[in-house]
Amino acid sequence: MKRISEYSSVVESAVRAMELPGGKLEGLYGPVKYGMEAGGKRLRPVMVLMGAEAFGADPLKAVEPAVGVELFHNFTLLHDDVMDNSALRRGRPSVHARWDANTAILSGDTMLTLATEYVTRVDDSLLRRVIAAFDRMALDVYEGQRLDMDFEKRESVTTEEYIEMIKLKTGALLGFAVMLGALIGGASDEDARKMYDFGMMLGVAFQIEDDWLDTFGDPAAFGKPIGNDIRQNKQTYLLVSGLQSGSADVEALRVAMAMPATDTKVRTVTRIYEKMGLKESAHAAVAEYASRAMSALRATGLGEAQKDAFRLLVEKLAGRRK
Amino acid sequence: MKRISEYSSVVESAVRAMELPGGKLEGLYGPVKYGMEAGGKRLRPVMVLMGAEAFGADPLKAVEPAVGVELFHNFTLLHDDVMDNSALRRGRPSVHARWDANTAILSGDTMLTLATEYVTRVDDSLLRRVIAAFDRMALDVYEGQRLDMDFEKRESVTTEEYIEMIKLKTGALLGFAVMLGALIGGASDEDARKMYDFGMMLGVAFQIEDDWLDTFGDPAAFGKPIGNDIRQNKQTYLLVSGLQSGSADVEALRVAMAMPATDTKVRTVTRIYEKMGLKESAHAAVAEYASRAMSALRATGLGEAQKDAFRLLVEKLAGRRK
Repeated sequence: MKRISEYSSVVESAVRAMELPGGKLEGLYGPVKYGMEAGGKRLRPVMVLMGAEAFGADPLKAVEPAVGVELFHNFTLLHDDVMDNSALRRGRPSVHARWDANTAILSGDTMLTLATEYVTRVDDSLLRRVIAAFDRMALDVYEGQRLDMDFEKRESVTTEEYIEMIKLKTGALLGFAVMLGALIGGASDEDARKMYDFGMMLGVAFQIEDDWLDTFGDPAAFGKPIGNDIRQNKQTYLLVSGLQSGSADVEALRVAMAMPATDTKVRTVTRIYEKMGLKESAHAAVAEYASRAMSALRATGLGEAQKDAFRLLVEKLAGRRK
Repeated sequence: MKRISEYSSVVESAVRAMELPGGKLEGLYGPVKYGMEAGGKRLRPVMVLMGAEAFGADPLKAVEPAVGVELFHNFTLLHDDVMDNSALRRGRPSVHARWDANTAILSGDTMLTLATEYVTRVDDSLLRRVIAAFDRMALDVYEGQRLDMDFEKRESVTTEEYIEMIKLKTGALLGFAVMLGALIGGASDEDARKMYDFGMMLGVAFQIEDDWLDTFGDPAAFGKPIGNDIRQNKQTYLLVSGLQSGSADVEALRVAMAMPATDTKVRTVTRIYEKMGLKESAHAAVAEYASRAMSALRATGLGEAQKDAFRLLVEKLAGRRK
């Protein structure tokens, strides 16, 4: 197995080697290229390559399907940015802001079709399973996004509902990515399923960790400003479990949520979260899901070197707290 | 071969039999059902069934892929209505108007994935070809929509550019639909390609006929009000070839285009079109593409009864003028 940074470079080169029409179709494919060039961690395609290599294939065999997974992820970002009216994405104008909403919709559709095209670049013997799993994953992601949108309008959301939502919105794609790699690598159906569970649980840990970092993280390490979730009253693991805690401070939290979106609000809510013990309990939830991911991994027939590579990935994603 | 209305009923039943999740996911799948219930001609899925039966299969074998084609078509309508900000679709509020733009985007994405899921319900031996053709068709449709959006902002568009755009935006899906049916029916690669050409040329004839009817049609037979294209200065075969005609009336046409969107404008532009001879030349263009469709059909190995059924379809779609 290689270092994670080596898998990232392989993905990066493959993304840059994608051939897309230009000329009079620049208005359609230009935003696709722009979205894909934004970089980021390339976490999902890296998981495809790792899955393939862990089960014995040359990771290059999985590189086109891995690009497909990244295309799918970026398709969701283009459409999410329209739905959230977000002007920024990874420090650059979003497609929606740089062009317009119609361009983000249509080039997003294009990325979804290109994703299907790339993900299905697998052996014929795998084609049926890969398409079925890809379509199921895509529906899971839409269902998660729908629940997320619905939750924003609701008075209260339970922690269980929140976990179910992030399983769909974040976990399903990580599960699919590593399972796709495993299938390409020749994993048995049973091992492929366990790798899916591994990715799914890792995805939940990753999202709760992200929620934690948005409030308690070090801005330099997190890579974006702290406190945005609090400013926007975004449903996060912290907010949902705080409101549901039955603690004496729930009322104070509700009052603080009604404050204007300033640094004072961020400090006030952060202090209430700390008083409620959420810094520790969210931390424990990350550890719990990371441990479930590790259990799924241990249950596979992978060798120790392969398991170690995935263990490192878990530490990287679920251990970003300083 | 059956009557077109019989194929439509088969499609209608299959659409109504689709099982989609409800409950807390009603916000995602409700608009999908709403979009699919709108009816319309069901032209594209009918062409799938006709293709399958013409080449010897029970059309029921093609009914799920046919529903997939209808899902794809309705996905494009959901997103187009957001992009055009259209409040009405087939006499009812569009999904965008009845819910909101975000719902139309997300439920549209869902329809595209469901379309892939249904279209791929074919024998394993066809799977690779069907996916490749479906993805290519989808990209063609997006490219056509992009060109259409770009043309709306341009001073002048040539008739050739306009034809290229409607080949992509309208022709590609009709070509794919009938080719998909043909493949399911067991057509040779060569016959499948010819049926694609048949559908493509029929699509171009159908779109120019639609442009003609929007100006010169009988509102009762056309099923929607006349003159909308003129009111909105929409790029149509009439407008594009009028502006490009080099006739002495081009200046008058430009002046009329600048009028407010009233019935007077519709009457004025219609009169200029008639003076330019566009009523006849557009009619001739419909006939030309219908004849190209018939040539492609004749070149296949189909029997006379099968060819007759498709000939009827051409007459129905390209002969709606009274």
